Amino acid sequence: MRCRKCPQRAVLRLPRHNTAFCGPCLTEFVNTQVQKAIKAQAMFSPDDRILVAVSGGKDSLALWEILLKLGYRADALYVDLGISGYSDRSREKVERFTHDVAEPCGAKLTIHTIADDAGAGIKELATLVKRPTCSTCGTIKRYQFNRIAWENKYDVMATGHNLDDEAARLLGNVLQWQEEYLQKQSPTLPASVEGFAKKVKPLYRMTEREMAAYAVVNRIDYLVEECPMAKGAKMLVYKDVLNRLEAESPGTKHRFYWGFLDKQKKAAAASSTLDMAHLDQATLQPCDTCKQPTTAGTCSFCRMMARAKTPTH
Amino acid sequence: MRCRKCPQRAVLRLPRHNTAFCGPCLTEFVNTQVQKAIKAQAMFSPDDRILVAVSGGKDSLALWEILLKLGYRADALYVDLGISGYSDRSREKVERFTHDVAEPCGAKLTIHTIADDAGAGIKELATLVKRPTCSTCGTIKRYQFNRIAWENKYDVMATGHNLDDEAARLLGNVLQWQEEYLQKQSPTLPASVEGFAKKVKPLYRMTEREMAAYAVVNRIDYLVEECPMAKGAKMLVYKDVLNRLEAESPGTKHRFYWGFLDKQKKAAAASSTLDMAHLDQATLQPCDTCKQPTTAGTCSFCRMMARAKTPTH
Repeated sequence: MRCRKCPQRAVLRLPRHNTAFCGPCLTEFVNTQVQKAIKAQAMFSPDDRILVAVSGGKDSLALWEILLKLGYRADALYVDLGISGYSDRSREKVERFTHDVAEPCGAKLTIHTIADDAGAGIKELATLVKRPTCSTCGTIKRYQFNRIAWENKYDVMATGHNLDDEAARLLGNVLQWQEEYLQKQSPTLPASVEGFAKKVKPLYRMTEREMAAYAVVNRIDYLVEECPMAKGAKMLVYKDVLNRLEAESPGTKHRFYWGFLDKQKKAAAASSTLDMAHLDQATLQPCDTCKQPTTAGTCSFCRMMARAKTPTH
Repeated sequence: MRCRKCPQRAVLRLPRHNTAFCGPCLTEFVNTQVQKAIKAQAMFSPDDRILVAVSGGKDSLALWEILLKLGYRADALYVDLGISGYSDRSREKVERFTHDVAEPCGAKLTIHTIADDAGAGIKELATLVKRPTCSTCGTIKRYQFNRIAWENKYDVMATGHNLDDEAARLLGNVLQWQEEYLQKQSPTLPASVEGFAKKVKPLYRMTEREMAAYAVVNRIDYLVEECPMAKGAKMLVYKDVLNRLEAESPGTKHRFYWGFLDKQKKAAAASSTLDMAHLDQATLQPCDTCKQPTTAGTCSFCRMMARAKTPTH
């Protein structure tokens, strides 16, 4: 199989685009797609300070690398979840990448350790607050990412969510018609209210397979295993199901998610109250404990921390 | 495993309702659900004349049987597609059922043979008009069902589509955000304009498994095989995928489709122009050939027939 852009041997077929690329042409393709994403969704400009949330996996490390190569001012944040046999290894990958790739570009890494702040790792915390590990983790990561980006005056926070992640999330939300979540599923969420950092997903145009190939081609040393806590998570089932549909009809994920974005854009154009910033301003207020924006009186993070500190009988 | 309503042995588990039923209790459950469907979606009243579209499969024959047992005035229509080795066997099932079950209740069967009308069976016709067999078949069946129901002054036309059918169709429409199809996906479509029969799906609350068990318990002699033309059809992939999701989380199909109906109802209540009758009145006009309602100048059936009659060179 030959690359469709040059005479080299192809390393990846992209059935959804009916094409195939060699390593360098794949890299160029990914870079172009990320730039298109940044522009199409008004994510950030070259002057903005970006905080990339990195986990040690392929997507977030590749995202950091791409942004640095494209000349953006991108630092990173790693949240150490304290999962034994996993967090130490992912942290090592992130630290090595920082040393080898990011620091030479003048970028820096911030590490936030859950146990320092909450007195326990994510697993123990989930047990304490009697909630599933993945949702406990989600609440904590969302909170800390936002807080650290905001407090350190970053213009925008970027995560490595790819098309597979977004399509799976959309499928889950659509299967249950979660209107509220559907409204908030966008590759760019504005800094709508005081205390809320702008959030972007520059890899929303890339599939998981494409990002894995990109990471291999570009010798990004990432942690291959999924988080051991995620076993049996619904998102993995949704991804499986979408892979099945994609195999039957290449481009399914792409049409599903992009079609949704088009629909959302039209709805927002038709009604200014469906605009994300308006929605946030109408529903968010400062948490009575930590002052970060929340729809409740006390935010879910503070409620969780309060529960974790309540002695059990 | 015991029936949850009586001391008998259960024949079917219904994980989505966290229950299990013996044969008679399953039958009662199905009857109740069909009556709920008829009432909730304002399908028809005991005085209405109903035309059931029967194919020889479990759903449509069971539907006809249920409506007759519940005391409704239900005749049936069978469309002979002329698929050799299949249509003859399905027709035989329908004719036997008519003789054994329907005629003793005073109901009658009408048979429409595609070949009599179009000069060829569905397979040959699809080849002639250069379209996939399933879409050719869909166009012809929709047209003839509507025409025959309308010309014979039936108040309503009923089809045996079950929850699996509707959820699979919804998934297909959502994956591609087919707004127009999404608007028209409802268990009751009104007789909105002259020439358009009212259409209902009284089995939309029942899964395929539940209907298969119902048919076996009630000794309905139906054709088990799927249509040989449907092999590889996308609907089967969607059904497979939904079965996978249902196994992971019982009630998925149910929540997906009913959640959609709720959402649709709210949208229609908020805007009278989203009401089905208004949508139809705004977009339909009589076909310039056959006078049946269509969104185009000539309806898709007449265009197809014209193409079939054009000599090929």
